[in-house]
Amino acid sequence: MNAAIMAREIGEQPDVLRRIEEEGRGPIERVAGAVRRRQPRFVLFVARGTSDHAALYAKYLVETRLGLPAGLVSPSTATVYNAFPYLRDVLFVGISQSGSSPDLIEPMIRARGAGAITVAVTNAPDSPLAQSAEFHVDVLAGREEAVAATKTYTAQLLTLYLFVDALVGDERADVGALPDQARDVLGCGDAVALLATRYRFADQIVVISRGYNYPTAREAALKLMETSYLVAHGFSAADLLHGPMAMIDRGFPVIVVLPPGDGGLSLRPVTDQLARLGADTLVIGEGEACGVGTVGLSLPPLGQEILSPILTILPLQQLALHLALQRGNDPDRPRGLTKITETW
Amino acid sequence: MNAAIMAREIGEQPDVLRRIEEEGRGPIERVAGAVRRRQPRFVLFVARGTSDHAALYAKYLVETRLGLPAGLVSPSTATVYNAFPYLRDVLFVGISQSGSSPDLIEPMIRARGAGAITVAVTNAPDSPLAQSAEFHVDVLAGREEAVAATKTYTAQLLTLYLFVDALVGDERADVGALPDQARDVLGCGDAVALLATRYRFADQIVVISRGYNYPTAREAALKLMETSYLVAHGFSAADLLHGPMAMIDRGFPVIVVLPPGDGGLSLRPVTDQLARLGADTLVIGEGEACGVGTVGLSLPPLGQEILSPILTILPLQQLALHLALQRGNDPDRPRGLTKITETW
Repeated sequence: MNAAIMAREIGEQPDVLRRIEEEGRGPIERVAGAVRRRQPRFVLFVARGTSDHAALYAKYLVETRLGLPAGLVSPSTATVYNAFPYLRDVLFVGISQSGSSPDLIEPMIRARGAGAITVAVTNAPDSPLAQSAEFHVDVLAGREEAVAATKTYTAQLLTLYLFVDALVGDERADVGALPDQARDVLGCGDAVALLATRYRFADQIVVISRGYNYPTAREAALKLMETSYLVAHGFSAADLLHGPMAMIDRGFPVIVVLPPGDGGLSLRPVTDQLARLGADTLVIGEGEACGVGTVGLSLPPLGQEILSPILTILPLQQLALHLALQRGNDPDRPRGLTKITETW
Repeated sequence: MNAAIMAREIGEQPDVLRRIEEEGRGPIERVAGAVRRRQPRFVLFVARGTSDHAALYAKYLVETRLGLPAGLVSPSTATVYNAFPYLRDVLFVGISQSGSSPDLIEPMIRARGAGAITVAVTNAPDSPLAQSAEFHVDVLAGREEAVAATKTYTAQLLTLYLFVDALVGDERADVGALPDQARDVLGCGDAVALLATRYRFADQIVVISRGYNYPTAREAALKLMETSYLVAHGFSAADLLHGPMAMIDRGFPVIVVLPPGDGGLSLRPVTDQLARLGADTLVIGEGEACGVGTVGLSLPPLGQEILSPILTILPLQQLALHLALQRGNDPDRPRGLTKITETW
């Protein structure tokens, strides 16, 4: 087993980010312009799995940059209970790699019927989800073959960032450094492979972060579950303190994603408490910031906190890949999963 | 250790439900009437921990019964990033047992300043959260001493159900049977204590459900983490299929909360898949419906699905209590936690 597909797709991410900036930005801005003219007052997202973590990131962006209230829709409201909210003035965004899961398509069709401004963000322009929305945004990641999504996740993050940026409509954000930054972060792969050996016999793990990088913690936990079959929990550091902290004792493995900026500062009381408890922490952060854990992974400069989720997930994708290989799993074909998950 | 406090508070729940119906309903309806006159168009909830699971239940109610779009606010938007959405026409509901965590109070104050109709749902009328909102609803659970919340959770669920019911404004829902139903379900405690012995040496567990009972799965996992220090994951069955299913193999312990109604029917493909994988399933459901698992816990009639989360959590609270005792933990005083969690 060489995990050729997942490894290749992880490596493609700098090129995908460049493509979105060069070819995707125009179409994204055109859709955003049409949406702006309709003046949405509330934003809803619907998504599952990895795409749901991209939706969570976008929800933070809508709250902090656009100043609009936002929510994540429960698909079962439509598919199980046959109900649906009234959606005038609502921007309704469906996010999906394949654009094919029935429990996203059904809410999208209903949202459009209920008066929402509908946008599908997919990697498949011909998919039913893309076709059922009024507007479509292509994340341009190229065909993704590995079951565990990697390049489509960062492509969704950058696409959603540029979409919200265009909805704000001030000066265009400069994202030109991201592809090189991503290449530099991926350059730490050998250090990540070495760190993966520490978890060869771990049964469980907790990943924490905060704010814009809370989705990073959730997505990292999902990758570890999907490929390494590790029972992995992703928490916001604040949620960890509201109960789950009780399960953390001496030697319990915790990965801390330490972002730059205020999000990173807000984690400090939690890393202090984890140190007092004697938890085994791997701190992933910029430069020397990672020095507060049992072990650290020092990343090159991450730039602005708000864009950092596009970079901080990269070593965690590599960790999931290497750990899967070391445990004898095939990360390209996780047991029990298929590339397109159809839920209802 | 006899867990006197948590056991007593679990047992108080039928009386608390009766008190809400008899004394709480009037005040709840008065607040709902005032809110209705202001015609909110969106509903946001802010909460942490157990109260966040009550918020998730209320979000389903708002979507399905009230037909309004709803969301759960990220407190860090206000407390870490100093941003906040513009909230005209928004009903903003803060839910907290103690009403004391800074990362709920700050968003509540900002929401009121941003034009929202603000309601605090607490067990502490004199708390800063209650004081900072325009309206307050008391969940009337009486002082809760155990660190792990039990009676305040079901009190929040019933209070929020009655609140949304009054916002809908049709015929008043009949909830008079709930206290007796709760007493009957709690009467299965001996069977639950016996089932707890099966998990004496488990390191991890997954709890699943769907729809209105998805919060039950999340809350059950939290109780197991808090008191038994078990690494417990609560998933919607649909989310389980989008990745985490890969970690489930032969003998992996899974608890399935099988509600009555459409939510229960929608779980069938997942219980079938878990059976094929050879997972060890404990199915908790009404009467003979629990027969589809490795073991089952047969509950007395649960009534309407929409109210069933008030009942289905009860055996799971008992399970967390008994398992903690069998593992030599003190569920009244979980390690590393305090009754009032202050996050920021």
